[in-house]
Amino acid sequence: MTHFTSVHSIKDLDALVNQALEIKKDLFADEALGKRKTLGLIFLNPSLRTRMSSQKAGMNLGMQVQVINAGTDAWTWEFEDGGVMNKSTSEHVKEAAKVLSQYCDVIGLRAFPGLIDRNYDYSEHVLNSFIRHAEVPVISLESATRHPLQSLADLITIKENWPHKRAPKVVLTWAPHSKALPQCVPNSFAEWMNAAPVEFAIANPEGYDLAPEFVGSAKVYHNQKEALQEADFVYVKNWSSFETYGAMPCVKDDWLLKKDFVESNPQTQFMHCLPVRRNLEMSDALLDSENSLVYKQAYNRTVAMQTVLKSILERTL
Amino acid sequence: MTHFTSVHSIKDLDALVNQALEIKKDLFADEALGKRKTLGLIFLNPSLRTRMSSQKAGMNLGMQVQVINAGTDAWTWEFEDGGVMNKSTSEHVKEAAKVLSQYCDVIGLRAFPGLIDRNYDYSEHVLNSFIRHAEVPVISLESATRHPLQSLADLITIKENWPHKRAPKVVLTWAPHSKALPQCVPNSFAEWMNAAPVEFAIANPEGYDLAPEFVGSAKVYHNQKEALQEADFVYVKNWSSFETYGAMPCVKDDWLLKKDFVESNPQTQFMHCLPVRRNLEMSDALLDSENSLVYKQAYNRTVAMQTVLKSILERTL
Amino acid sequence: MTHFTSVHSIKDLDALVNQALEIKKDLFADEALGKRKTLGLIFLNPSLRTRMSSQKAGMNLGMQVQVINAGTDAWTWEFEDGGVMNKSTSEHVKEAAKVLSQYCDVIGLRAFPGLIDRNYDYSEHVLNSFIRHAEVPVISLESATRHPLQSLADLITIKENWPHKRAPKVVLTWAPHSKALPQCVPNSFAEWMNAAPVEFAIANPEGYDLAPEFVGSAKVYHNQKEALQEADFVYVKNWSSFETYGAMPCVKDDWLLKKDFVESNPQTQFMHCLPVRRNLEMSDALLDSENSLVYKQAYNRTVAMQTVLKSILERTL
Repeated sequence: MTHFTSVHSIKDLDALVNQALEIKKDLFADEALGKRKTLGLIFLNPSLRTRMSSQKAGMNLGMQVQVINAGTDAWTWEFEDGGVMNKSTSEHVKEAAKVLSQYCDVIGLRAFPGLIDRNYDYSEHVLNSFIRHAEVPVISLESATRHPLQSLADLITIKENWPHKRAPKVVLTWAPHSKALPQCVPNSFAEWMNAAPVEFAIANPEGYDLAPEFVGSAKVYHNQKEALQEADFVYVKNWSSFETYGAMPCVKDDWLLKKDFVESNPQTQFMHCLPVRRNLEMSDALLDSENSLVYKQAYNRTVAMQTVLKSILERTL
Repeated sequence: MTHFTSVHSIKDLDALVNQALEIKKDLFADEALGKRKTLGLIFLNPSLRTRMSSQKAGMNLGMQVQVINAGTDAWTWEFEDGGVMNKSTSEHVKEAAKVLSQYCDVIGLRAFPGLIDRNYDYSEHVLNSFIRHAEVPVISLESATRHPLQSLADLITIKENWPHKRAPKVVLTWAPHSKALPQCVPNSFAEWMNAAPVEFAIANPEGYDLAPEFVGSAKVYHNQKEALQEADFVYVKNWSSFETYGAMPCVKDDWLLKKDFVESNPQTQFMHCLPVRRNLEMSDALLDSENSLVYKQAYNRTVAMQTVLKSILERTL
Repeated sequence: MTHFTSVHSIKDLDALVNQALEIKKDLFADEALGKRKTLGLIFLNPSLRTRMSSQKAGMNLGMQVQVINAGTDAWTWEFEDGGVMNKSTSEHVKEAAKVLSQYCDVIGLRAFPGLIDRNYDYSEHVLNSFIRHAEVPVISLESATRHPLQSLADLITIKENWPHKRAPKVVLTWAPHSKALPQCVPNSFAEWMNAAPVEFAIANPEGYDLAPEFVGSAKVYHNQKEALQEADFVYVKNWSSFETYGAMPCVKDDWLLKKDFVESNPQTQFMHCLPVRRNLEMSDALLDSENSLVYKQAYNRTVAMQTVLKSILERTL
């Protein structure tokens, strides 16, 4: 059985992206494939894009789709083994995963990190516990350290918007925020870009370096201006500190890209996974620019999920 | 692109009501029309009738239907332009509307008024912001000042239950409540009745006059008894003050219609949009009377939504 | 019109179980039966298994399925007649039931007991009020005193896992918990076992005897060890006191079955309705034993619901 949890779940990344572009030409070409199959989408956290695009992808493939908000619709889950469940959790992940496997042919699970215990989050304890007990393929709808469906959609979007032969220069840049956010999207984007035929770099303030396993071979800049020189794609995203886990160390420089950057870099295309806080994390100038790809990325979330689901149903992932 | 937000969205009201009565004869006659189309129903507020009837109407037309509780399932929305989003909202309506347009062919949106700032509510800031950024047709599932699907269902119900040639006398009467309610339903009902072939009047205590733009040419009575004389249809509904916006000015007279009214007006039919607080806003005597139309109104909510959806899908609205 | 609320809703229990086993062989054999029919699933309380299995059963039969969390998606309900609704409830069950009957061909309702007023709960006031006003068949998705779909799934599971000719010995045993739970599952299980061809007994501490109407002819033991001797099936479940209603009288003996019990009773099969608190109510040793039937019970929830739905749609219940 094959799960989809990261770029490492993919045998041939280039082939998968090409398949996605093929699927995108006719989203209803495989509507018999999922007939009589049930897709369960389990959310431990809020979601708009993932919820809608995943549901749509399943329906496009003819699947029965069920969406559950685990904590409110159903019961809170326990993830520790062997203990006495005399606290607030009502159901062990072992039962949850095995029971869901009775009703679903494929399960999507969203489980954000707590941002308190780095080892716990980075061991992907929640997702891995669920997978260990599940008896059907599991698709990560964003876990403690990764958001692979977003990254696949991002890669599709880059490929579609890069008509040139040379590898594009893609830069992931940190941006400000008022709340401590997970590292899932930047981790995952880095992981996928490192595996893709692009020239990839990361820009973030000191104290905000991502985990080495995700940075990989990417060059890391602590100077945004330097990093962004001649960038073809700039991926804007806030994240909290990995080093001082979950903290938001003070940043002196202004990392919010503005109108002057758009004007002086007319060739650069802008990306963000959304939701985004306007003028805090990303300015109107970038978001409303003709070079913004954010809505195309959102559209490609359906394509990404449909590609993964099709591969799982056809056992080719 | 055509949206459905009020009676002004309709080209030919009489034709639409006739079409609705035709659709009602066989709710499954058009089940191929919506094939491969997605209807997104977005609720910023609670809903039972609108939620179920809209979902049913979409499914009857063969559509894929997705229902989202925006605030809890997904992210809270920001409606102001140009500001720095460093408060509690997580996603700007611009992104929300444009992203939903990536996944949906038609979007229904419910957004109640705040009842605090009259200019803000009466400018329909939330609905209009959403529509400005949406790229697909939008159907109001009740907005700050109107509930047009309810009014269409009400008009269908009146037409079905009025076998006579002469125009019926329809009276909208205010009724008591313990909570400050929006003016959406009475505003909307007044707007539709003023456009329909009926004799229309409004009864409400002083201090509760609706906005002139909705009252239109209707006669307004501050004496309930006088207003209700020889009424064929009495539409009962509470609303808070438009004049002292959102307030509930003290009312001395007893505006709750009771058994004696039912008995002395055997020809009068009673309407309410539901939910209703029994014996506070509408007495058991009216609700349980043989002349109550409230459940027929509820049934016609499906017919109304299906008529609007069909018109949008066929681009005839 | 026929409702499904307890074992007393069934004409021929043996025939129904045999029909269930037939349905289980091909869950898609009747996918035309529910075409153009709507199943409404209304939850006043959380649910995972019931929610998913009921939705799946409806979809397997080709029905349109709508799931509503009544209190959060929609409006809070009033259950008392004749009063003035000037408190916190927004909609009377009379309107709720009649309105839902406008949109649904079959309605499932979940309504847990309050565990405060025994007479109120045991009169099934909520479920019965709803049924009194409903105009379509109603299926209990667990009510104040019973969980009949669970019991039907349990009986199917016992039949499937009992290859012998003699009647199996089935023992329902109380188990510890940190929270006061309803008596629904044990009441209902007792009621169904008393109607089934099994030898049935109940084990619980003093103070935890179930209501006589549910105990029926079953022998009640206050000594767990004695009760469980030579048991073929042990159904483990906590419940709060019926006698001192909703209380949790102190229990001195250790009622948690452990590894030694599993080892010394290799023929005994273990059941639980789930969710279960591991090592508080049921130990890992039982749950993870090869003789545990809990996931098979969960699977059979779909079969049970599909059997009941099919019978209702075919008017053979």
